[in-house]
Amino acid sequence: MKASQFHFATTRETPADAEIASHQLMLRSGMIRKLTSGIYTWSPLGWRVLRKVEAIVREEMDRAGYLEMLMPAVQPAELWRETGRWDDFGDQLLKLTDRAGREYVFGPTHEEVITDLARNELRSYKQLPVTFYQIQTKFRDEIRPRFGVMRAREFLMKDAYSFHIDTTSLEETYREMYAVYSRIFERAGLKFRAVRADSGAIGGSASHEFHVLAESGEDLIAFSTGSDFAANVELAEAPKPQEPRPEPGEEMRLVDTPDAHTIEELVTQFDLPVEKTVKTLVVQAAADRDHDFVALLVRGDHSLNELKATRLDAVASPLRFATEDEIRDAIGAGPGSLGPVNLPIPCIADFSVGVMADFGAGANTDDKHYFGINWERDVELPPLADLRNVVDGDASPDGAGEIRLARGIEVGHIFQLGNKYSTALNAVVLGEDGKSHPLEMGCYGIGVSRIVAAAIEQNHDERGICWPEPLAPFQVAILPMNARKSYRAREAAEALYRELLDAGVEVLLDDRDLRPGVMFNDMELIGIPHRVVIGERGLDAGTLEYRLRTAEKNEDLPLENAARTILERLGRG
Amino acid sequence: MKASQFHFATTRETPADAEIASHQLMLRSGMIRKLTSGIYTWSPLGWRVLRKVEAIVREEMDRAGYLEMLMPAVQPAELWRETGRWDDFGDQLLKLTDRAGREYVFGPTHEEVITDLARNELRSYKQLPVTFYQIQTKFRDEIRPRFGVMRAREFLMKDAYSFHIDTTSLEETYREMYAVYSRIFERAGLKFRAVRADSGAIGGSASHEFHVLAESGEDLIAFSTGSDFAANVELAEAPKPQEPRPEPGEEMRLVDTPDAHTIEELVTQFDLPVEKTVKTLVVQAAADRDHDFVALLVRGDHSLNELKATRLDAVASPLRFATEDEIRDAIGAGPGSLGPVNLPIPCIADFSVGVMADFGAGANTDDKHYFGINWERDVELPPLADLRNVVDGDASPDGAGEIRLARGIEVGHIFQLGNKYSTALNAVVLGEDGKSHPLEMGCYGIGVSRIVAAAIEQNHDERGICWPEPLAPFQVAILPMNARKSYRAREAAEALYRELLDAGVEVLLDDRDLRPGVMFNDMELIGIPHRVVIGERGLDAGTLEYRLRTAEKNEDLPLENAARTILERLGRG
Repeated sequence: MKASQFHFATTRETPADAEIASHQLMLRSGMIRKLTSGIYTWSPLGWRVLRKVEAIVREEMDRAGYLEMLMPAVQPAELWRETGRWDDFGDQLLKLTDRAGREYVFGPTHEEVITDLARNELRSYKQLPVTFYQIQTKFRDEIRPRFGVMRAREFLMKDAYSFHIDTTSLEETYREMYAVYSRIFERAGLKFRAVRADSGAIGGSASHEFHVLAESGEDLIAFSTGSDFAANVELAEAPKPQEPRPEPGEEMRLVDTPDAHTIEELVTQFDLPVEKTVKTLVVQAAADRDHDFVALLVRGDHSLNELKATRLDAVASPLRFATEDEIRDAIGAGPGSLGPVNLPIPCIADFSVGVMADFGAGANTDDKHYFGINWERDVELPPLADLRNVVDGDASPDGAGEIRLARGIEVGHIFQLGNKYSTALNAVVLGEDGKSHPLEMGCYGIGVSRIVAAAIEQNHDERGICWPEPLAPFQVAILPMNARKSYRAREAAEALYRELLDAGVEVLLDDRDLRPGVMFNDMELIGIPHRVVIGERGLDAGTLEYRLRTAEKNEDLPLENAARTILERLGRG
Repeated sequence: MKASQFHFATTRETPADAEIASHQLMLRSGMIRKLTSGIYTWSPLGWRVLRKVEAIVREEMDRAGYLEMLMPAVQPAELWRETGRWDDFGDQLLKLTDRAGREYVFGPTHEEVITDLARNELRSYKQLPVTFYQIQTKFRDEIRPRFGVMRAREFLMKDAYSFHIDTTSLEETYREMYAVYSRIFERAGLKFRAVRADSGAIGGSASHEFHVLAESGEDLIAFSTGSDFAANVELAEAPKPQEPRPEPGEEMRLVDTPDAHTIEELVTQFDLPVEKTVKTLVVQAAADRDHDFVALLVRGDHSLNELKATRLDAVASPLRFATEDEIRDAIGAGPGSLGPVNLPIPCIADFSVGVMADFGAGANTDDKHYFGINWERDVELPPLADLRNVVDGDASPDGAGEIRLARGIEVGHIFQLGNKYSTALNAVVLGEDGKSHPLEMGCYGIGVSRIVAAAIEQNHDERGICWPEPLAPFQVAILPMNARKSYRAREAAEALYRELLDAGVEVLLDDRDLRPGVMFNDMELIGIPHRVVIGERGLDAGTLEYRLRTAEKNEDLPLENAARTILERLGRG
């Protein structure tokens, strides 16, 4: 492609409402244009990248034997009423009314439509398992669309649905899909983790999220240095302490702590190691309990995992923290002075609290703490449970390696749905046993347009995008210097361009006749992986200037056989 | 692809509401499934065909240097208000409201969005000409969706938009696009005509429609046997008669015609050649005329072209036919007894009426006609104009060949829009003259999903679809007979399947273990162009049975080198 024949629309200004790098860079490079809140046009430049992602996804899905199809964007309300999601899905659902007054939704997902198809067309176990997929525009009416295409309202998604006679078959396809997804993100050149996830609103039993690792990610992921264990922090099991509880070394003493109402203040003012402090959090108790509230104890340097807390029998679900007034009523002290000693309500401690000795905690009297507390000697050991979020350095729950934390951007999600939708829509097939069985179902999504933004979050620097090669809109940029004046540079550039084009390389010849600085800036902003500069000076020396987008320095390459050399750099030598 | 791994859903019953062949065959073959009125799911089988069309369109658009992009489906109402189409487009426009109460449309077309992009990103004539295109799901809320995907509400469309500094450049791209469209339909293997068209609601000056020829087509097209002239019948110019008017041969006489109120009755009852009769039609006159009505005369065997009539200065626009009461008031006779002699209102005659002699027409008295009328002698020759629809056998207006009429299905449309949208949205660029110019614009559509239906209308028989090879979901079907019992047939089929697959052929191996009749019916219904049957009997003789979908008979081909022979039949020898 010659740049003069392409549509470039780079801009130097960073748009005011673009908060994250990918959003800024996609706007500045001209990949996308905002039409209105959460709705974007993909320019020819952006579309080239989106198509790359789409092609990888399609190839891998096809290779696995999944069947591509296309379902409508506009779906009748009746189907959503049948599954109850017309109401459950909430305001994210964009509802429509046609000229005849019939109601529809602009599909945010397609479980209803595919299950409706399945109940009409799948009759026998002999047709199973079967996996359908589509790559399609979806709409979710986000309350706060932001981050560009990262959380847009209209977006491109690959959604797949598998149907099975039993859960064994579902699990098999699920494992296969896990591998297919891994290959897709590998082929896209992305650093990612597959993490166990809570299946949330879609329902079902097992699910994994695929996260592209990037500092700006909204999700915190725990993964192992020694295995492929990875989980959302909220789901990662904390290791049980292996060491026994130390013997008491100090006497328990009551200390005035008038200015210490947080762990940090306590640690700073009293030179107490944070691992020797305990945080006490008061939450509403389950309805069947004698007390209205329960205290939860975690070590001072740990944080409460609310999902784990919610799962405790003793605790009300959903989780609700007690107000300051409720705490004073129930305990007689403010939230900054709570602890296990003389606590008038039941408490549950995290496993790691159970092995503490000589620790400090509130005295359940305002402005006072006990230091040197020891379990059994000073106060009864409460029931223990896994209550905390894992931290960097924890042992991996599978015993292999240590936990590391990283931020991730969710770009894929696979679910074992079970028969939730098939039961709601009465989608049954005849089994080998001659009986009718509700279909077992899996669903599998990839945010195709989101991958583009996530790839940029993971791969950029202060000058612009650094595309992983499989996603780059062009592989090579050729920049002739002063092309208008320099016939030689123009000719050499054109010759190299032709050679690379004939070799099937996606090459961009910048023939826009702009100042070198403008061309350099554009190509770096756009993130083309390989750059070749051709100028009079180099030609005199028989060289051209080559630079990898992520390299620190230029390299002089011989002009002779330049195309072959560049093909080698592209890994196609 | 092995049939057992694919999803087949053929059915024998013809759905009650499917009126035309393509709709019936697409449902019966399982290519599409109706979700709700005018909204269809494309099954894996249908999607394979749709992707073929999409690929041809994309390749030819790319080859021409047009830039693919993707605009949103959901467009803000403000843009449509700016061009006035929020109201003008009528109820076809599917309007939406989001959770914040803002109004949108589900895009039926994208002139507003692309012109908005152009006004933001095109600044200078140096960026022109440029042509953008997308392949995207559109929605038009048809009042009466029917004929399956032929006139669906949700459909897949390729829409392109070109921008120019002047009309010369617009015309150049328009001609180029004409050629690109022609290549697309040729490559798809379709018989088609590009016809001059009225540009209708979208506005602008020149336009052509591309029609796939098929008996079930809704449009009547006139084309020449001797040139590439083709036009919608409503737009085709009728040739002026070349022969002079014959001398009078009869006396004019008043005849009682109590039972003849139509041309047909007149011709039958009085043995009058239909070419010797004149039809008189009364329409409302233009407001600036002395009379309220005008009579239009066409030969008895011709029909009035309403578009041509509307264009007459003397005639009110839009065209309105007088009621019987109005005719009686103005003329004193009923509509079955009108004619040019003693006509109290002005009249205009078709050119062919001007060369008639000895003809019959109503006497403007109920139940009476004059026979043997001659112009000049019996009544003054009225003003002449082109008023009729062309008919089979007319000379082509370009002088080359004769007119033939055929029915067509519109699958593409190209328009020179001019500056209608750029003026409405103030999209201007700086010209070479340093002045600001409104962008000249063209728009170009192809009904991607409609092509699939049109191809079937043109290519089917009583047994099913007969795909043109470029659109077939699979090129070759291999049918082993009694595969469960016959190890030899199974092995030979599998071997041929592998060989063709390795040669890059889209081949379907029907391993579903069904009765031969069911397999034959399915493959014929689905329309796979090449069928290979492998059975014990043939294997004994060292042959397999080959048949082209459109051939009358089977052919025995030697089993040896069968793959090579079939590749030859595929034109890949």
